[in-house]
Amino acid sequence: MQRAKVVGTLWLSSAIEDIRGFKILILKDLSSSKGGYFLAVDTVQAGVGDEVFTVSGSAARQSEATKNSVSDTAIVAIIDRVNEENI
Amino acid sequence: MQRAKVVGTLWLSSAIEDIRGFKILILKDLSSSKGGYFLAVDTVQAGVGDEVFTVSGSAARQSEATKNSVSDTAIVAIIDRVNEENI
Amino acid sequence: MQRAKVVGTLWLSSAIEDIRGFKILILKDLSSSKGGYFLAVDTVQAGVGDEVFTVSGSAARQSEATKNSVSDTAIVAIIDRVNEENI
Amino acid sequence: MQRAKVVGTLWLSSAIEDIRGFKILILKDLSSSKGGYFLAVDTVQAGVGDEVFTVSGSAARQSEATKNSVSDTAIVAIIDRVNEENI
Amino acid sequence: MQRAKVVGTLWLSSAIEDIRGFKILILKDLSSSKGGYFLAVDTVQAGVGDEVFTVSGSAARQSEATKNSVSDTAIVAIIDRVNEENI
Repeated sequence: MQRAKVVGTLWLSSAIEDIRGFKILILKDLSSSKGGYFLAVDTVQAGVGDEVFTVSGSAARQSEATKNSVSDTAIVAIIDRVNEENI
Repeated sequence: MQRAKVVGTLWLSSAIEDIRGFKILILKDLSSSKGGYFLAVDTVQAGVGDEVFTVSGSAARQSEATKNSVSDTAIVAIIDRVNEENI
Repeated sequence: MQRAKVVGTLWLSSAIEDIRGFKILILKDLSSSKGGYFLAVDTVQAGVGDEVFTVSGSAARQSEATKNSVSDTAIVAIIDRVNEENI
Repeated sequence: MQRAKVVGTLWLSSAIEDIRGFKILILKDLSSSKGGYFLAVDTVQAGVGDEVFTVSGSAARQSEATKNSVSDTAIVAIIDRVNEENI
Repeated sequence: MQRAKVVGTLWLSSAIEDIRGFKILILKDLSSSKGGYFLAVDTVQAGVGDEVFTVSGSAARQSEATKNSVSDTAIVAIIDRVNEENI
């Protein structure tokens, strides 16, 4: 599970049926200090600039919206507030 | 499976049903020397400052508390004591 | 899920039945700044130079084309267009 | 699957039922040159100093001893002998 | 899925039943430029010096030879020929 910021969108062609119609967003990882980029299927109508919460692996296909997809990473919530202590 | 220290909490909005009501904690990895951060669903009422034991991947959905969630990482115990030898 | 460019092809011999007949392509990762290489089963007739979209893990066996294979990474679409903002 | 040396033990409290009673060992990775540390459920009565063979992911729950646990990494053998050629 | 060269063999003792009788080989990764080492169950009678094709995760238990094992990485073919373009 990761915290990430939405930074872009991907449009697919020649997609197999199991991924057609899904919105694929480009995310910047906020969980690690490395700050890499990754892709996720959107299930919560996220938009560029939103801070989102993602799940990976087979977990990404446990939701009603993605259960028949080929997704391996999904946005499952918008992040509302973060409280982090420096311990 | 990882050793980690709880350092914060995440509040979600627009969450899909399968993750609503779960407490998401921010953890500092104590297993590796890299010391990165990651997120986990709490199943043992852990709090900030606690040293916890987590499982990842489909294992995170094997417990009674998480079996219908979209979790990919879960806190499944508090760490009581560690014995490490320098060999 | 990753963005990648097709850079080559792999031919197998002594392959077990569950991977025979599948086209294995060599991909250059475009998702991360590390730019590593990885392998994927092709399901969309991709060719060298194409920008493709891949899925990994058990997701790679969710499609009609790969469900009985031993694949752990599959090309499931060609990338048509990318919109990335610098935020 | 990894080669590792047992270097310590972890004691848990407030553990969920699915991990109670399992022995959790601290391992030093011998597979990679990075030499990191990781945790595994023991299924072969390994002790500190032993060189062991581990499996990860859902494979860690395929054995009789771990099939109902939340384990994501398990020690499944002691390593007897290694033959490595410098090619 | 990875390209790798076989560089050694591992002999196990005290192995749990689900891994007994499997040949475990030591592989040098040829996919990435990092060139790390990893372990895999052999299903194609590979030998030291052979270039092989491996699958990881639950895919490693999809073959007839490994479906009841605890394997998380398996050699499923010998690599015959590679064509890589510098694009």
